[in-house]
Amino acid sequence: MNKKMRVGILGATGTVGQRFIQLLEDHPQFEVTALAASDRSQGKPYHAACAWRLPGEMPESVRSLPVNAPQPPLDCELVFSSLPSGVAREAEEAFARAGYAVISNSSAFRMDEDVPLLIPEVNHEHLALLETQRKTRNFDGGFIVTNPNCSTVMLAMALAPIHARFGVEQVIATTMQALSGAGYPGVASLDIADNVVPFIESEEEKMEAETLKILGRMSDSRVEGAGMQVSAQCHRVNVTDGHMAAVRVKLSRPAQVEDLSDALSSWRSLPQELRLHSAPSQPIIVRQEKDRPQPRLDRDAGRGMSVTVGRIRPDSVMDFRFVALSHNTIRGAAGAAVLNAELLIAKNIHAKTSAK
Amino acid sequence: MNKKMRVGILGATGTVGQRFIQLLEDHPQFEVTALAASDRSQGKPYHAACAWRLPGEMPESVRSLPVNAPQPPLDCELVFSSLPSGVAREAEEAFARAGYAVISNSSAFRMDEDVPLLIPEVNHEHLALLETQRKTRNFDGGFIVTNPNCSTVMLAMALAPIHARFGVEQVIATTMQALSGAGYPGVASLDIADNVVPFIESEEEKMEAETLKILGRMSDSRVEGAGMQVSAQCHRVNVTDGHMAAVRVKLSRPAQVEDLSDALSSWRSLPQELRLHSAPSQPIIVRQEKDRPQPRLDRDAGRGMSVTVGRIRPDSVMDFRFVALSHNTIRGAAGAAVLNAELLIAKNIHAKTSAK
Amino acid sequence: MNKKMRVGILGATGTVGQRFIQLLEDHPQFEVTALAASDRSQGKPYHAACAWRLPGEMPESVRSLPVNAPQPPLDCELVFSSLPSGVAREAEEAFARAGYAVISNSSAFRMDEDVPLLIPEVNHEHLALLETQRKTRNFDGGFIVTNPNCSTVMLAMALAPIHARFGVEQVIATTMQALSGAGYPGVASLDIADNVVPFIESEEEKMEAETLKILGRMSDSRVEGAGMQVSAQCHRVNVTDGHMAAVRVKLSRPAQVEDLSDALSSWRSLPQELRLHSAPSQPIIVRQEKDRPQPRLDRDAGRGMSVTVGRIRPDSVMDFRFVALSHNTIRGAAGAAVLNAELLIAKNIHAKTSAK
Amino acid sequence: MNKKMRVGILGATGTVGQRFIQLLEDHPQFEVTALAASDRSQGKPYHAACAWRLPGEMPESVRSLPVNAPQPPLDCELVFSSLPSGVAREAEEAFARAGYAVISNSSAFRMDEDVPLLIPEVNHEHLALLETQRKTRNFDGGFIVTNPNCSTVMLAMALAPIHARFGVEQVIATTMQALSGAGYPGVASLDIADNVVPFIESEEEKMEAETLKILGRMSDSRVEGAGMQVSAQCHRVNVTDGHMAAVRVKLSRPAQVEDLSDALSSWRSLPQELRLHSAPSQPIIVRQEKDRPQPRLDRDAGRGMSVTVGRIRPDSVMDFRFVALSHNTIRGAAGAAVLNAELLIAKNIHAKTSAK
Repeated sequence: MNKKMRVGILGATGTVGQRFIQLLEDHPQFEVTALAASDRSQGKPYHAACAWRLPGEMPESVRSLPVNAPQPPLDCELVFSSLPSGVAREAEEAFARAGYAVISNSSAFRMDEDVPLLIPEVNHEHLALLETQRKTRNFDGGFIVTNPNCSTVMLAMALAPIHARFGVEQVIATTMQALSGAGYPGVASLDIADNVVPFIESEEEKMEAETLKILGRMSDSRVEGAGMQVSAQCHRVNVTDGHMAAVRVKLSRPAQVEDLSDALSSWRSLPQELRLHSAPSQPIIVRQEKDRPQPRLDRDAGRGMSVTVGRIRPDSVMDFRFVALSHNTIRGAAGAAVLNAELLIAKNIHAKTSAK
Repeated sequence: MNKKMRVGILGATGTVGQRFIQLLEDHPQFEVTALAASDRSQGKPYHAACAWRLPGEMPESVRSLPVNAPQPPLDCELVFSSLPSGVAREAEEAFARAGYAVISNSSAFRMDEDVPLLIPEVNHEHLALLETQRKTRNFDGGFIVTNPNCSTVMLAMALAPIHARFGVEQVIATTMQALSGAGYPGVASLDIADNVVPFIESEEEKMEAETLKILGRMSDSRVEGAGMQVSAQCHRVNVTDGHMAAVRVKLSRPAQVEDLSDALSSWRSLPQELRLHSAPSQPIIVRQEKDRPQPRLDRDAGRGMSVTVGRIRPDSVMDFRFVALSHNTIRGAAGAAVLNAELLIAKNIHAKTSAK
Repeated sequence: MNKKMRVGILGATGTVGQRFIQLLEDHPQFEVTALAASDRSQGKPYHAACAWRLPGEMPESVRSLPVNAPQPPLDCELVFSSLPSGVAREAEEAFARAGYAVISNSSAFRMDEDVPLLIPEVNHEHLALLETQRKTRNFDGGFIVTNPNCSTVMLAMALAPIHARFGVEQVIATTMQALSGAGYPGVASLDIADNVVPFIESEEEKMEAETLKILGRMSDSRVEGAGMQVSAQCHRVNVTDGHMAAVRVKLSRPAQVEDLSDALSSWRSLPQELRLHSAPSQPIIVRQEKDRPQPRLDRDAGRGMSVTVGRIRPDSVMDFRFVALSHNTIRGAAGAAVLNAELLIAKNIHAKTSAK
Repeated sequence: MNKKMRVGILGATGTVGQRFIQLLEDHPQFEVTALAASDRSQGKPYHAACAWRLPGEMPESVRSLPVNAPQPPLDCELVFSSLPSGVAREAEEAFARAGYAVISNSSAFRMDEDVPLLIPEVNHEHLALLETQRKTRNFDGGFIVTNPNCSTVMLAMALAPIHARFGVEQVIATTMQALSGAGYPGVASLDIADNVVPFIESEEEKMEAETLKILGRMSDSRVEGAGMQVSAQCHRVNVTDGHMAAVRVKLSRPAQVEDLSDALSSWRSLPQELRLHSAPSQPIIVRQEKDRPQPRLDRDAGRGMSVTVGRIRPDSVMDFRFVALSHNTIRGAAGAAVLNAELLIAKNIHAKTSAK
């Protein structure tokens, strides 16, 4: 592939939108050629529209790109979307209908029956839903692929190899989630300084429902949800980046701590085989220290794309307990979407855009 | 009662020791007449031995008291102990043997079969163990009463009225614990800034074992552990005071969210009947807001002696989930011990000290 | 005084408004009978209009008071105002014109020539401006009294006794200010977690200008600004409550460290003589420990109304350096206004309200 | 240069020691071949002796190196030292005497008359002191070069181009310093959570004295201290990495804000000319945003080797004010020492070690 694919970013001025731009700078396959946002920044050049909040400078390549309204047409073939849920549904469908590949981090379509909720390491076979999607929605070339909520992805990834080998019957997850998960301005400092907030809007519901879909199997051209029970309690803690989950699991088949550890750390999947650009060489890193994972030390593992698991122990109520962590705006958002797009290219799934 | 009881504080220079002094200032029944510590502060007056780390000033009444070694005799009838576990076992036994009432916050004797692990609202009948203790250990007048670990107490209190009414079969608790629980200097700032640490030494084991003992019943002069399973995962978060636990429970008998809420908020027990000085009028406060309890807003409820519970919801794996919070150095440590001592006085259980 | 004065609170739902309500609960002279706010909460009862963000419960006495628009008439004689600066000017003037005493924490009128910028310990003689104000503005009974910005008050108080005794010629102040100074939602958590922000809108300008007015003298019925130079650099740090300032001063007359320490700690003024309810017995507390003041340990000194000063040392460029701290929403805002109102009552300065 | 220089690290297990190892991994000129520490870790392989506290993994290349006592001989030509001040003086002199180049981050020798206190961009001509050092101390081949304290370096660098162009007569600096500057365990979390500490042992003295030496000129084979006055007030804030200073300066010659901005941002010096590996292309980055620099956003500028300056404004007492920031364990410690070593190599200043 000589020429880079031209991509647009919907929601470009937000926290995740900035991560998209950061991750796509110098990406071998993508070139950011269009930006859009739903806020008052439309019409301005990006450098004027966006208060850059990531360490380092705004990449030169996007500084003077104009910020458009999130409506087709945009000068690109594929759009990454991190639009707020309120506007995502309409805007993303409009792009798909106009023939664009829509790779979305928004929650709008995640649970729609004909939309893949994709983690390339876990359920790439769910891409078969795109055929149904095209028919159901009468899309002519365009399509929508979504990635999970930032707290779901670490849970689903940690469960995947365990489920495959030992069968997961019940999951109890308790999260401690980072501030960047709420976007900007997001959490007020007075709410979180010297504090923990035991509530994140819709988060427990998302984790429970999405996990079942992600771990489900294709059957008759649809996803049959995984036959397990999932319970999630979600908390906001005073950490900039890195979501953590304390997890208990009940298994169908007997296992030892070493078996789980091995199942997790030896796990490789399609993105690793295909050597996708954003795929970490090791999707799950198992640490043996008694006090790991920790957000500040482990969130950037695998350039933010690895999930770190530690403290695998027998549990006194369920079978096992462990702690999982991942970077919520990389593997949990922008990085997840970019990896999805890389998988689509590798599988030669393209939007059939003629007009652009 | 006209005359105040003379009390000593073992471990007086530590975080919990300072809370003891703060709580006992102007206490109607106790007067601090002796201080002891195991560190290099021995021999100095308290104001020189102790870097006071609580807001406000060191009380005048203790400033010039000398800091003694933690060995009898001390000029008092009763000792409150928050000695480090390494030295607590020997020192506390020595005081009990010398005829003192030992009211301990240390973990040394908590799980000994003949030592009450007391929460006055929950298991005051466990004080019957003191008879066994006296015989077994050949104590002549002295005795040892302990209070639970700072993270156990909120869990055991929240479970007590639920267990009484509906029967608790399984408990899964995931904690987010405050810095002051580790004493001083305790947690290094570099370990917790922008971070969560998923490990606290021996904490998960303590929570699991202590809860069973506390909720157990007296039978044949011993405590029969509660017939339930308890699982604890413990985390340190960047909060000064206030431990929080996300809890799931499986019950023996059917219940509705309102039933649990009512069982918790209407719960009153012996300390409330006896109007003990440190007893909160409401041991458990149930909050209906979707984002409570929170450490900074709720830790001081009931002057730090109430447990606050919120987010009672049906659970998708167990029967119910909720979030509990209490002040870890008041209800979870010094306040717990003071309340224990108040109960002993109200029940007329005194050390039979003649020599002092 | 048998009957309490009926007071209203403008801006009742905000951070400072809530502090007003907290400080006025059980106040011997004031009773809150009316609430107003400029936001969408108008018309609702206070408990529905306001998310209470202070530890503890919203006082029962205000729960069912309706939230009105900030326009006269309100059922009260005096209004405390913490309205946002955008609406304060018009609303406060309307109340004064309608015959109310307006005790304002807003910045709107602070620098107006005919409005007292009052710290009762420092410049109570500035109340003489009220005569001019009445004439200039044609007020018939009502008036406006303001208190300083939250970062100015600690500086002006610390300078007052030094200036009186030794003459201050130059002041260089560098602040580290708390989150609550920005109100709610105020500072985004992502802006301040693991961070310092070296900018607070208009803060440096306010500190420099207000200090000169406060320390100025009455001359010909107007305030002649103090003849000194003031430089302020202001920073936001990750602290909930408690503003701190590192200060250097150049003096007119020679002094020793002990002289400054004595001038500060021995300072008493009119509010102490009059034993005003909110007046701290010691307006300035000087601490000798080398690492004090600290926000968490010292902000509540004198129930939040004392300024704490420490680290008084000779300076290698100016004459002396020291560190000052005070509670920014008590002495720096709501408490300051309440003390102002107490002084007015003690001096028998009342709004001549007939209609109410 | 084909072969890498073999270097040892004294104090290898500490916070700065770990930074040395991180910065030297894949360094084109240095290879870590020896480790030493003064603590109980001696004798163990590094991976067992050291709890790695930086994000990412301990480099493979040092995992099995043994940790030695900090005494010669060590298998290397040059030692980087971050030994605690208590042991640094003796150990570093021993290495220099034994013929090693000692590049020290410790404070032990910084103010000795015959020891360069080096910032390559600022005072490389001070290396002439090595001739005196060799004679005075009778060193045979070895020598000692030091870098400044972590808070001094950002001040001295920001002052250097201003002093050169406009003459600095007075400096008033007020710092807000990061936790990592205190090493590990360093600052107790209970001391800094929701807090600021206005005291760092010896820090103000170091900043004042070191700045004068660094900005001084060689005269008669010795450094004549800069003819200015420096005042420093130092504070610890709750930030992991990145020291900040609010600075006022009085100048000898008239200037405009733009002149200062230009003097700072256009400044290039010998390390940039020599293209030293660790030299940032721009030693000082001037930012125009009104709320920069900020530790979390700017500490990693120039891979942690650039100083960021912002908020350059006229001052109402001195001539100008501004805010400076740099990474305290890179430009302020390990990176500073590595750059010093690179300069020595570029200037062909080597220890004349024969035995190694």
